[in-house]
Amino acid sequence: MFGSIRKKSISCFHHSIRSITLSGINFSVAATTKKKMAAKLTAEQRKDKLDPLLGKGWTMVDNRDAIYKEFLFKNFNEAFGFMTRTALLAEKMDHHPEWFNVYNKVQITLSSHDVSGLSERDIKLATFIEKAAKSVVE
Amino acid sequence: MFGSIRKKSISCFHHSIRSITLSGINFSVAATTKKKMAAKLTAEQRKDKLDPLLGKGWTMVDNRDAIYKEFLFKNFNEAFGFMTRTALLAEKMDHHPEWFNVYNKVQITLSSHDVSGLSERDIKLATFIEKAAKSVVE
Amino acid sequence: MFGSIRKKSISCFHHSIRSITLSGINFSVAATTKKKMAAKLTAEQRKDKLDPLLGKGWTMVDNRDAIYKEFLFKNFNEAFGFMTRTALLAEKMDHHPEWFNVYNKVQITLSSHDVSGLSERDIKLATFIEKAAKSVVE
Amino acid sequence: MFGSIRKKSISCFHHSIRSITLSGINFSVAATTKKKMAAKLTAEQRKDKLDPLLGKGWTMVDNRDAIYKEFLFKNFNEAFGFMTRTALLAEKMDHHPEWFNVYNKVQITLSSHDVSGLSERDIKLATFIEKAAKSVVE
Repeated sequence: MFGSIRKKSISCFHHSIRSITLSGINFSVAATTKKKMAAKLTAEQRKDKLDPLLGKGWTMVDNRDAIYKEFLFKNFNEAFGFMTRTALLAEKMDHHPEWFNVYNKVQITLSSHDVSGLSERDIKLATFIEKAAKSVVE
Repeated sequence: MFGSIRKKSISCFHHSIRSITLSGINFSVAATTKKKMAAKLTAEQRKDKLDPLLGKGWTMVDNRDAIYKEFLFKNFNEAFGFMTRTALLAEKMDHHPEWFNVYNKVQITLSSHDVSGLSERDIKLATFIEKAAKSVVE
Repeated sequence: MFGSIRKKSISCFHHSIRSITLSGINFSVAATTKKKMAAKLTAEQRKDKLDPLLGKGWTMVDNRDAIYKEFLFKNFNEAFGFMTRTALLAEKMDHHPEWFNVYNKVQITLSSHDVSGLSERDIKLATFIEKAAKSVVE
Repeated sequence: MFGSIRKKSISCFHHSIRSITLSGINFSVAATTKKKMAAKLTAEQRKDKLDPLLGKGWTMVDNRDAIYKEFLFKNFNEAFGFMTRTALLAEKMDHHPEWFNVYNKVQITLSSHDVSGLSERDIKLATFIEKAAKSVVE
């Protein structure tokens, strides 16, 4: 049954169950969904979804369940254009990066504070970041 | 029961019912909520929520159920900073303005294409725009 | 002698001669440079620099010495990321576009108000815009 | 004679003398101007221009001639709107901050790499940052 639920819907439910009282079976559905989104990545998810990112230059942060990557652009114009695209998605997801920038350099750390570790939201944001950075750098 | 539903939750439901099968009473709840958000403003809503905006310089567009306002800033820096804040909210709401800019001038038209007219989303976006513009212009 | 002057320097001089008194030969140098940058494009410049842009989808605006092009992106995220990069260069050049946006669409008109027509600044900005739009759309 | 030179002109000259050959007296004029802009702040300038910033929450960085301040906004929308305004000026000045952001927090370090310390450009950027941050936070 859940195969047909799109990402977008899932993340919405994550927010909505905080304030809407759902009864009976639907409550457990929402609870399951929330757990799936908010929970730390399982071993299986790390193999399927995190490893591909580690293969693209993301690294695990020391002593913390978080990922990090440095991006180098040609100049500040490219770097900040990339940051704006990332900001728009981050705000939409309500999931924000920790990032440092100087001129053409952008260093990004991703982690989900509410679960003290990596969640599917970090995978989604990192995947977008890869695509957006690549499109600028050509 | 619905008095406690926050705006955020409602707008999530608006999206989520497209892909999640909800049964029984909860389905009708979501349908009602969607209708409320997506529907054109009622006469009562126009009096309560639209009129205050018309009192602040927004005007009705000719031959179209849409509102318009021109904002003048001190320079391009202020204008584009304001546009970025508006862009972040628009993307979060998935509800985007029609806007024109040259240097310090920003002309904004708001309407909800899916209902061919003004909805509560336009009220929400216009209210934010007022606040964001005011904070820049001082 | 002028072959070695970079674009950046020229545009600086354009501003600086308004407030610095330069004497003798250097004054005429700056005056010439300013004229070159601010003046309407000559017939030769239009052939060399404007025609390539017209070949890429830019069109002359009716009854006005200005160029126009519409860009379609995949979504608002791409469109506004592109707009931010263009804004950064526009502000640096102190030469701003007239532009309209709704969702994934960006319509841009370029002209130099101080000379009531197209100047080299429009060529420079349009050339950048082509590059920035292309990098986003892939 | 120099009393009438505006900030803008000075910063232009700073760039332009790298590529334009100026002869005789004008060369020394430009060289003096460059030195003034690019040089580390003098003791007198620190008293007149840096101290007021230190009075507003900026602090000296340990073991480095640089200034630092943390800004807290209400949310990411405000923080990134502020960052965009700062980015536009930074790019215009060709003088960029070292900055870190997560959600509503922006930590900024300013220093002039070419002189390994604080210059008038840092004063100018910090002064703008104060104004832009204040206008958002109200």
